[in-house]
Amino acid sequence: MISYQQCLDWDQQDQLKVFKDEFALPENVIYLDGNSLGARPKNSLNYAQYIIQQQWGEDLINSWNKADWWGLPTRLGDKVGQLIGAKTGETVISDSTTLNLFKVLSAAVKIQAAQFPQRKIIVAEKDAFPTDIYIIEGFIDLINQGYQVELIEGAEELEQVLEKDVAVVVLSHVNYRTGYFYDMSTINQRIHAKKALIIWDLCHSVGAVPMDLNQTSTDFAIGCTYKYLNGGPGSPALLWVNPKHRDQFWQPLSGWWGHKKPFDMAQHYEPANNIRRYLCGTQPIISMSLIECGVDIFLKTDMQKIREKSLQLTDLLMALIEQECSEFGFELITPQDHQYRGSHVSYQHPHGYEIIQALIARGVIGDYREPEVLRFGITPLYLGFEDIWHAVQHLKAIMQQQEWKNERYLVRSEVT
Amino acid sequence: MISYQQCLDWDQQDQLKVFKDEFALPENVIYLDGNSLGARPKNSLNYAQYIIQQQWGEDLINSWNKADWWGLPTRLGDKVGQLIGAKTGETVISDSTTLNLFKVLSAAVKIQAAQFPQRKIIVAEKDAFPTDIYIIEGFIDLINQGYQVELIEGAEELEQVLEKDVAVVVLSHVNYRTGYFYDMSTINQRIHAKKALIIWDLCHSVGAVPMDLNQTSTDFAIGCTYKYLNGGPGSPALLWVNPKHRDQFWQPLSGWWGHKKPFDMAQHYEPANNIRRYLCGTQPIISMSLIECGVDIFLKTDMQKIREKSLQLTDLLMALIEQECSEFGFELITPQDHQYRGSHVSYQHPHGYEIIQALIARGVIGDYREPEVLRFGITPLYLGFEDIWHAVQHLKAIMQQQEWKNERYLVRSEVT
Repeated sequence: MISYQQCLDWDQQDQLKVFKDEFALPENVIYLDGNSLGARPKNSLNYAQYIIQQQWGEDLINSWNKADWWGLPTRLGDKVGQLIGAKTGETVISDSTTLNLFKVLSAAVKIQAAQFPQRKIIVAEKDAFPTDIYIIEGFIDLINQGYQVELIEGAEELEQVLEKDVAVVVLSHVNYRTGYFYDMSTINQRIHAKKALIIWDLCHSVGAVPMDLNQTSTDFAIGCTYKYLNGGPGSPALLWVNPKHRDQFWQPLSGWWGHKKPFDMAQHYEPANNIRRYLCGTQPIISMSLIECGVDIFLKTDMQKIREKSLQLTDLLMALIEQECSEFGFELITPQDHQYRGSHVSYQHPHGYEIIQALIARGVIGDYREPEVLRFGITPLYLGFEDIWHAVQHLKAIMQQQEWKNERYLVRSEVT
Repeated sequence: MISYQQCLDWDQQDQLKVFKDEFALPENVIYLDGNSLGARPKNSLNYAQYIIQQQWGEDLINSWNKADWWGLPTRLGDKVGQLIGAKTGETVISDSTTLNLFKVLSAAVKIQAAQFPQRKIIVAEKDAFPTDIYIIEGFIDLINQGYQVELIEGAEELEQVLEKDVAVVVLSHVNYRTGYFYDMSTINQRIHAKKALIIWDLCHSVGAVPMDLNQTSTDFAIGCTYKYLNGGPGSPALLWVNPKHRDQFWQPLSGWWGHKKPFDMAQHYEPANNIRRYLCGTQPIISMSLIECGVDIFLKTDMQKIREKSLQLTDLLMALIEQECSEFGFELITPQDHQYRGSHVSYQHPHGYEIIQALIARGVIGDYREPEVLRFGITPLYLGFEDIWHAVQHLKAIMQQQEWKNERYLVRSEVT
């Protein structure tokens, strides 16, 4: 039996607890949705004020130089790079994850086509966050060169599909729904053994689990900054390219920000001989700049410590739901094995939607994903052991008192 | 002879002068670069604070519904639409101009390929802002279906090139360098007479000149919100599609924001039956939201009044440079004819770069564009007649005293 006191004791011993003070969280809220929209770093408010008043309002156009707006994609890229095993100059922040997938997919397909023209299969997961599948479909339809997308169930079907003419595999490092966490190194080896290329979608893993893109010989990676990294709503996304691939191909979203000499106003595109060739058009400077507030908090600690606490908290959540709520029919769909678990925990329940609404009404913010999935994001920088205890007590009360049957929880809004 | 007193009198009579107070401009600066980065609406600071503290920090994930973040692209699109002759539901704000060009170009090419498969020429201007050319090149290279870009000098070469197998023409409504302003209606008629489609780049015309995309039967339009519209540095861009084309084709940057039912997490892309199909991934909410501050100022007046004052101010600038600086070798490259003049005025001068630096040192902020072009943006909502007088007096003093010869003005920074 895990007691409330035990949770308080764990909080006492927690080395990361000091970081909670860096975030502005509403009172009386236990926020278990930082894997969807990260909490707000307190510093973001002053920093936004500075960018808006000084950089935009006072320095105006001069900020492209003085504040180095032009250099933001690589400067922030290098900071995020420290969390993913990237070296300086390998990462950019730009556009959205969806668009960045289009860029690296185009590059990967082109690289493969030059060497293995018969390879026409692009592998993705049925359970990928759908935008990955949609952009592959859009790409295939556009180029109209006989490529096909093949959707697999997960790791177990990978071996089999790799027997076919696979050009590129797109996988989510941590699955957005189940929290399943791929072993990047093993998977990369399997994919490379069959001469395919791998694109990792890091949306639910960057800032959540340690990784080393170089050491694992990853080919391409993309991911969000507004989830675990706390960059702010819809903040631009990361893109990483293995240096061996970088200069081989110019990706087709070839806007002036990726040009070798953007201010020469040349009449032909010539890609920069560096990671900037993966940039396209002018970036949303205010949303982009605020990413720094979140990433800087991560850089005060390290991903190993964050991972350790993440596993302790997800272990605790699982154990407490087992201990307190076993009679209510929650089916765990997240791996219990640490090796395969990311930093969120999901349960299936026939009344998942209503239960999540009832939790939110009590100030416990998780989220719901089709079909019937309750999802709880664990963010070690601003969650403690006591938070998990209280969250589960709320869940228990909702189930015992059948609070979820309240009819207002049955009304589904379009956006969840 | 135009006198200083005359300028003061014009300011007295100016109906738009009340709007200057809506903007936060630095003291002792005459800002003639609002065609590159629009000035800051005062309201943007409080609004950003509200978005960051309340929507992000307090309401967190719930803001997707409560603050309707999800609806921002169309809600803001409809507001901008009022300035360009668009009806409700025809315009979105999203991504960057460069990316939006890729989307509409893909759609236009696909529509043409279905009807006129032999048409393989995409026309652009040599003097277009280069990102337009670069993205056409990237698109052509990617799809590898025999398309070619053909660059023309300008309007005079259009007739001739249209005799060829042209699929799509991409033109800048107002040229970023010279300020040349196309007659949209006439050009559209010529292009349509030859069965080609037109994409207008409105970057230097939206918020600067009146236009009516529907009345002129434009096919597609894209453009910036951070120039004349004062949306903030790199704020997301506009995209407009003629309703008759809208549902014909799903553009290939087909991310989940463009899906018919984005929260069903379906495994296949199905485009929304509305303008949202031109959306892709998650948008930078803070940068996007602030667009509203600028656009709302425009909606308090109208584009006809803005145009009238813009022409008065550009007339004045040209007349004063003629009157005060005729001996210094400035060659006007902007049309004098109102019909063909946008809202900025450009001169060529062999020492253009140094002269612009010397002007900036005196607080007169224009900008420099290769080759040898001094560019002065005229924004009637926050510039008066007296400002133009003073700007020209500074220019005269710099030339008379040869201030531009100061060696610090010879050092060229990478970003100008």
